[in-house]
Amino acid sequence: MSEQDANEMTGAQALVGTLADHGVTACFANPGTSEMHLVTALDGEPRIRSVLCLFEGVATGAADGYARVAGTPAMTLLHLGAGYLNAGANIHNAGRANTPMINVIGDHAVPHLKYDAPLTSDIVGLAGPNSRWIKSANKADQTGALAAEAYAASFGPKPGPVSLLLPADSAWLEGGKLGESLSTPSLREVSEDRINAAAAAIADASKPVIIMNGTALTEDGLKAAARLKAAGVRVMTDTFYGKMRRGAGVFAPERMQYFAEGAMDDLSGTDLMILAGTNAPVAFFSYPGKPSLLVPEGCQLLDLGDASTDSAGTLTALADAMGATDSAPVEVLKQPDAPTGDLTAQSVGQSLARHLPENALVSDDGVSNGLLSYLPTQNAQPHDWMMLTGGAIGQGMPLALGAAIAAPDRKVICLSGDGAGMYTNQALWSMAREGSDVTTIVFVNHSYRILNIELYRTGAGNPGPTAKNMLSIGGPDINWVQLSTSMGVPAVEATTAEAFDEALAEAIAAPGPRLIAAVVPG
Amino acid sequence: MSEQDANEMTGAQALVGTLADHGVTACFANPGTSEMHLVTALDGEPRIRSVLCLFEGVATGAADGYARVAGTPAMTLLHLGAGYLNAGANIHNAGRANTPMINVIGDHAVPHLKYDAPLTSDIVGLAGPNSRWIKSANKADQTGALAAEAYAASFGPKPGPVSLLLPADSAWLEGGKLGESLSTPSLREVSEDRINAAAAAIADASKPVIIMNGTALTEDGLKAAARLKAAGVRVMTDTFYGKMRRGAGVFAPERMQYFAEGAMDDLSGTDLMILAGTNAPVAFFSYPGKPSLLVPEGCQLLDLGDASTDSAGTLTALADAMGATDSAPVEVLKQPDAPTGDLTAQSVGQSLARHLPENALVSDDGVSNGLLSYLPTQNAQPHDWMMLTGGAIGQGMPLALGAAIAAPDRKVICLSGDGAGMYTNQALWSMAREGSDVTTIVFVNHSYRILNIELYRTGAGNPGPTAKNMLSIGGPDINWVQLSTSMGVPAVEATTAEAFDEALAEAIAAPGPRLIAAVVPG
Repeated sequence: MSEQDANEMTGAQALVGTLADHGVTACFANPGTSEMHLVTALDGEPRIRSVLCLFEGVATGAADGYARVAGTPAMTLLHLGAGYLNAGANIHNAGRANTPMINVIGDHAVPHLKYDAPLTSDIVGLAGPNSRWIKSANKADQTGALAAEAYAASFGPKPGPVSLLLPADSAWLEGGKLGESLSTPSLREVSEDRINAAAAAIADASKPVIIMNGTALTEDGLKAAARLKAAGVRVMTDTFYGKMRRGAGVFAPERMQYFAEGAMDDLSGTDLMILAGTNAPVAFFSYPGKPSLLVPEGCQLLDLGDASTDSAGTLTALADAMGATDSAPVEVLKQPDAPTGDLTAQSVGQSLARHLPENALVSDDGVSNGLLSYLPTQNAQPHDWMMLTGGAIGQGMPLALGAAIAAPDRKVICLSGDGAGMYTNQALWSMAREGSDVTTIVFVNHSYRILNIELYRTGAGNPGPTAKNMLSIGGPDINWVQLSTSMGVPAVEATTAEAFDEALAEAIAAPGPRLIAAVVPG
Repeated sequence: MSEQDANEMTGAQALVGTLADHGVTACFANPGTSEMHLVTALDGEPRIRSVLCLFEGVATGAADGYARVAGTPAMTLLHLGAGYLNAGANIHNAGRANTPMINVIGDHAVPHLKYDAPLTSDIVGLAGPNSRWIKSANKADQTGALAAEAYAASFGPKPGPVSLLLPADSAWLEGGKLGESLSTPSLREVSEDRINAAAAAIADASKPVIIMNGTALTEDGLKAAARLKAAGVRVMTDTFYGKMRRGAGVFAPERMQYFAEGAMDDLSGTDLMILAGTNAPVAFFSYPGKPSLLVPEGCQLLDLGDASTDSAGTLTALADAMGATDSAPVEVLKQPDAPTGDLTAQSVGQSLARHLPENALVSDDGVSNGLLSYLPTQNAQPHDWMMLTGGAIGQGMPLALGAAIAAPDRKVICLSGDGAGMYTNQALWSMAREGSDVTTIVFVNHSYRILNIELYRTGAGNPGPTAKNMLSIGGPDINWVQLSTSMGVPAVEATTAEAFDEALAEAIAAPGPRLIAAVVPG
């Protein structure tokens, strides 16, 4: 672009052009009046695919899925503070998954702000707590430079969502300038001294465990983990992780238990806990009389870096330092027979193990049914499994949408609870519009089933009719086939293991979005 | 309750009991693990009706509708920071409508917070900007007193949403104490001096106008407004207001135009603008080269108090001070003939004018179709019309749900754009569960139609295919009949004025929730 052209750019064009120059290829958007110039700037930028989402939480969940698969951030387009709020829960989740994301939040023109028009809000105040970086481009000639800064900031040191406010006049005025690339922070390496100290501690320990997340769960990281395992170290992932390679040919670490008391029993006797790509394990919620920190008393805690470090490299260096040459065995392909009888989360998992195509992507927001489907797929074709790390349900379908945009040649499977799916059901419409190759499996039990378990565990007492009603999402039962079809995604219901197995095989064979309502016990 | 009983209360019971003692009769809830003791406390409190919502934005929109009708706040139950974010857009809207609302946000147990578990977030940071008042009940013995404080704070001085954080241990521990009532702030009166100054300014002005909102739009306020009108003052409402009495027997003020240039043309020559229950009128959005403040140059601005004042009383005092004894005529009942031909927003309005039952409540989130349905209903049976004042679409159906809970004996009509309706479609499920007497009319044009208008008005250029796609919600078209039926609300589609008129008559005659997909021009 010549200097003259550059001077004729609007601020919106400079922002969009800068992000495209940096390799951003997708924008998940829900625009409003204040973003009209951003919309036309996107219209003129063929390098970015714009995906309309009918609710902002879909846009940010999709941007999360896109970046987990692509490794680079997507852009979102949000309408002022209210749009940010709608987007916020899945931004929280992305932050907890350490996913880079560039949220572009339209704002009123700067001179308009002082009049406190109806949609005015303190966006920096609202968005700040969940943004790794936040700035407002208050002049048209700043938009490009700030877009470049936002891109770099989304990589860290700890990757995550950043917020760039774009006042409408900064978007519409000319004088936009493309931003120059800044150096992108890369994941830190852990020092040789700390690696050696860890190797020595392992040698001294009687029951060492390593808890992993982040890049430790890549193919390279898991190869190193298999060597540690063979050398006598117990190898576990966090209960929830952003993405892990698994299936046939891949070493399968254990997974930390969800409930605090189960996790503590399981870790009993552990005298050394090494952290790689994560923080010390903590109970998801607190319960009367139960522990918060899931580290046995007297156990030494050794930190080899959180999500801001290159944990695959850390594990490899640790295995080298230990002289670990052998490897624990990898999983072999074992595809079970077709399940029969009542449909359960286990039989769903068995069908998945049979039909998951090589290199599939799984988005797991299955809540109480997630683990039961997860276990049987350990011996399926190699695939990547993505989880809800931030606890705000309603991530599954948006994440699957974004993953499908990032990898149009890979099959995406979405596992969602029915309660979780209702939060962001609008994702189905975007899947239909984009022809996303996603098979969504909704576990239909007409219940916030996990809460029925938690009600007991928290000691909150026996549920009376009001409490029961607050944990049940039946009465009326939601018809997921109709709901899905209403938004253009073909759907079937399965009530037996046989019917589900057949429906899954069909859905996986067909390109494009499908939904299966898997009716499982409540 | 005896002293001994009080000591055996949990913090959750004290909070719920205190709110019930203050007259709170509804809780719109989406609970999680950290709120289990709140759920059982609600289970034991027969004075509060607990309404489960499958998305938090439904809960807060419903609490807004409840309070606009009941005049007292409802409670919501939200799950940590992520739940607050999901709830946030309709809290923003409630703030802009000056609706009292008590948002109870569950949080981790205080000792658990430092471990930064996955759902931990800076709730005070996130929620602060949209809360009139925010505190955290960090001990079980504070919950009752803080609930009483939250109740009072929701009334103002300017009414609005307040946030009370309830850590899980404050909920589950015993030692809860019921909170004593604090004096509830009442709306301020405007001084006699200011009233007399306004009367004198009107006498001197050649083209005075009064812009009204808040309690000026009650039956009493409008009676006074009719006297001002007869005395030569132009009487207008804001473009959007929280609730107004209208229809047969009620004086109908004019309504400020939405688009800045239209509003300024309309106000041309105005030399005195008096504000009662509102702030100076401002363009909803800014546009290149168009004004922000909708006050003609040289026009005197006279402030008789914003939403924190008793504007009905102000107008009555002003009419008295002016010696205004006559009244402008009130509307008479005029029910048009059944409309025929193509279905349009106007013909929808005509059918509404024919069939609105006396004392109906209308929740208007009709966006570009709202005004066209509004005008013909001016001569319908007397009713209350409620609007979206905060600009965050997705309020209509939740607001209608809450209004129906507050007034089970009144028919509620919801007008929603299809784009707006998709934001919070989960409200339909709660309507079905609660048997809410709501007829929802969705204007189906498969488009963010207002944005197609705004794209032109902002001068953002001619839309190319990407821009067109971002403003269209067709491809695929959403099947609203299926969507509604999937959540248990019977629905029909109408494509002609005749079919709509018949469907509306049927829906209004039948108790319980119904939906009509009104296919109107895009």
